[in-house]
Amino acid sequence: MMSDFYQPHSALDLLQRFEGDVKARRRYLHERFERIREVDGQLKAMTALADSDVIMQTLDNVQGPLRGLPVAIKDIFDTCDMVTAYGSRIYAGHRPVSDATIVTLLRRQGAVSIGKAAACEFAYTAPTPTRNPCAPNRTAGGSSSGSAAAVAAGYVPFAIGSQTAGSTIRPASFCGVAGYKPTFGLLPTTGMKCFSWSFDTVGLFASGVRDVAYLAQALSGRRLAVNHFPGKPTFGLPESYPWTPASANAAAVMDRAVRMIEAAGATVIPVSFPAWMAELIGAHATIESYEAFQTIGFEYDRYPELLTPILREFLDKAAEVPNDAYIAACRKAESAKTALLAWFDGTDALLTPSAPDEAPEGLNSTGDPAFSRNWTLLGAPCVSVPGLRGERGGPIGVQVIGRRNDDAATLALAAFVESTLRKA
Amino acid sequence: MMSDFYQPHSALDLLQRFEGDVKARRRYLHERFERIREVDGQLKAMTALADSDVIMQTLDNVQGPLRGLPVAIKDIFDTCDMVTAYGSRIYAGHRPVSDATIVTLLRRQGAVSIGKAAACEFAYTAPTPTRNPCAPNRTAGGSSSGSAAAVAAGYVPFAIGSQTAGSTIRPASFCGVAGYKPTFGLLPTTGMKCFSWSFDTVGLFASGVRDVAYLAQALSGRRLAVNHFPGKPTFGLPESYPWTPASANAAAVMDRAVRMIEAAGATVIPVSFPAWMAELIGAHATIESYEAFQTIGFEYDRYPELLTPILREFLDKAAEVPNDAYIAACRKAESAKTALLAWFDGTDALLTPSAPDEAPEGLNSTGDPAFSRNWTLLGAPCVSVPGLRGERGGPIGVQVIGRRNDDAATLALAAFVESTLRKA
Repeated sequence: MMSDFYQPHSALDLLQRFEGDVKARRRYLHERFERIREVDGQLKAMTALADSDVIMQTLDNVQGPLRGLPVAIKDIFDTCDMVTAYGSRIYAGHRPVSDATIVTLLRRQGAVSIGKAAACEFAYTAPTPTRNPCAPNRTAGGSSSGSAAAVAAGYVPFAIGSQTAGSTIRPASFCGVAGYKPTFGLLPTTGMKCFSWSFDTVGLFASGVRDVAYLAQALSGRRLAVNHFPGKPTFGLPESYPWTPASANAAAVMDRAVRMIEAAGATVIPVSFPAWMAELIGAHATIESYEAFQTIGFEYDRYPELLTPILREFLDKAAEVPNDAYIAACRKAESAKTALLAWFDGTDALLTPSAPDEAPEGLNSTGDPAFSRNWTLLGAPCVSVPGLRGERGGPIGVQVIGRRNDDAATLALAAFVESTLRKA
Repeated sequence: MMSDFYQPHSALDLLQRFEGDVKARRRYLHERFERIREVDGQLKAMTALADSDVIMQTLDNVQGPLRGLPVAIKDIFDTCDMVTAYGSRIYAGHRPVSDATIVTLLRRQGAVSIGKAAACEFAYTAPTPTRNPCAPNRTAGGSSSGSAAAVAAGYVPFAIGSQTAGSTIRPASFCGVAGYKPTFGLLPTTGMKCFSWSFDTVGLFASGVRDVAYLAQALSGRRLAVNHFPGKPTFGLPESYPWTPASANAAAVMDRAVRMIEAAGATVIPVSFPAWMAELIGAHATIESYEAFQTIGFEYDRYPELLTPILREFLDKAAEVPNDAYIAACRKAESAKTALLAWFDGTDALLTPSAPDEAPEGLNSTGDPAFSRNWTLLGAPCVSVPGLRGERGGPIGVQVIGRRNDDAATLALAAFVESTLRKA
């Protein structure tokens, strides 16, 4: 199964192509608007577009590492020049007075924000109408549905998303692009609609791992771009999971991935999770619920009829989470963060599927965030590496999970994994 | 020196007075609007008022621990029914689409947000025109100038402020009211204009410590109200400070405070700060600068001519902070947080002045945050205890500093200190 819609562009290739050729850069941007207008009636990845005339005018003056590259912004981030509805009917037509900080950082690095990408309501789970560019009868995942689809469909080489449970890694996996959820706090969430202040993380999308690492370096100012692969890395491969198990389909993809990774000279050793890993699933639910009942409290109290039933029911239950349970869950999360660093000893990173399976059929669900939730709670950097497909023809990402604050190594390991999968 | 403007009301007394007397509650609220209209032309503590008819109508139905108590909200927090300008000309007349989370929490607990309190531009240091209710020719402090003044002048029994350096503790000290900066993260900052995501903390004001603890309990859901004093507490009194020293005036006030505290049965022992305490001053500046250059980046890039020179110059310099210096400062802050807990052994809390002196004359400066900056960085709970005045007649707060996440004990110790000062 292949689809005409799947045609991602490497940002690093584009930068090389545009070097010294302003016309090519202008032509590329012009074609992006054309492509979006042409196919987005079907894909529904975008909710708003910038004024192309204004964008084209500013293009000649842009500088910096992202000079002239178009970016799609998840519609959970404020933009002063485009409608920002946070995926909610409550905010239909809302035009913020300022840009989210990540949008400012993009502009400072020379990127061009050309549109808003469809997001689940307040980045929770109510599905968007976005179709998967790899298989238009399937979901693109969520909640960063439009961001993943926009990169997969070649609207843009880069997109900004977010992750509170699995909202970056899962759609990247489903759409066959690279997704990167940095260490918690590495990129600023100011001006992003908050759902859970303990978990909300800016997520990045690009066609490949080296591209997404380059974007992360430009935005964070840290040395994250991948210049060389690690020597002979050792990956840990969990023997089982305390959450939704991987499907036989995903397990078979992981087997293939492991063989390719080992053939490239890496070591893959079995690891088993400590007992507390299972407890973190509940801790994530407790913390997310408790905080969302506050952060979405204005909307829940004032416009309950404009919330989707799935969110309203979640918040109805969230109202019942006792303060003591929240505090206990926060404590558990804190001690797990410390314990995780020691548990990682002997491996450079973990390998897991990015999601339990390929993207499910239909648009009624954005899929299961099981393989992401705990890593979001733990604040650990995660990369969904594209390259492999399952038995039903859809992409399945290989997730590389690193140590907190060890993003450079995690991205380099993910790029190494990607290079082995590309040889397949 | 006393002023007619200084007439704070105890929220706990009001709640007792209003018990079963709806008319008294209505009358009180009505009188608040009258008082503000009468004197705020001189004090300039408020920037916007709620519609008094709308407020009076909702009053009969309010329930919860804060039932019917009016609150002033620092104009750095979004309110959908009142102009929110973040103290900046850029946002003159801005009306947000939603309420900050703390405003939602206030409403859920029965409080009534009756107005916005003057704030320094983006909660930095450009002075507001607010006059000190204790001495109208002096500053009320900043950046929560209006919040402290509104409580001191009896506009409201409670006010919401914030602290990124010393923006709650200092104005509380200058205005002779209780100020409480909770442990970092205890109260949600969602919907507050972000300056530094590592430091921004919601701060609370009330006439006394027990009142502010009651408000904190209602908003946080934690057991923070003061029901009894600690047995025989031991306070640490720093022998010297690595920052701006206390004036002779403030030192004399502290001497009086210590004698009263000891006379009440507590022990006060001299303590000396570890060497890293001095380094944190620079770490605070580095982290605040680096983050503000991003969070105020939209305004700095787009409307530089609408920023005050003091903020523009701060951001000009902030642009030069290297990423490596930021990362090193964050690491230093993290390890100091852990080291501080051990250093506290042997004492229940620290005692320091809340500011180096009484409020300075004039409105050209909001004073010096030296006695607050490191505790904000360390995330430790701080309470400015009112009760004493200096040789020039202005209030000087006694700051009680506790262990991170030990807010209940810190508030109880502060209430104990307050009770000893009241006997003076």
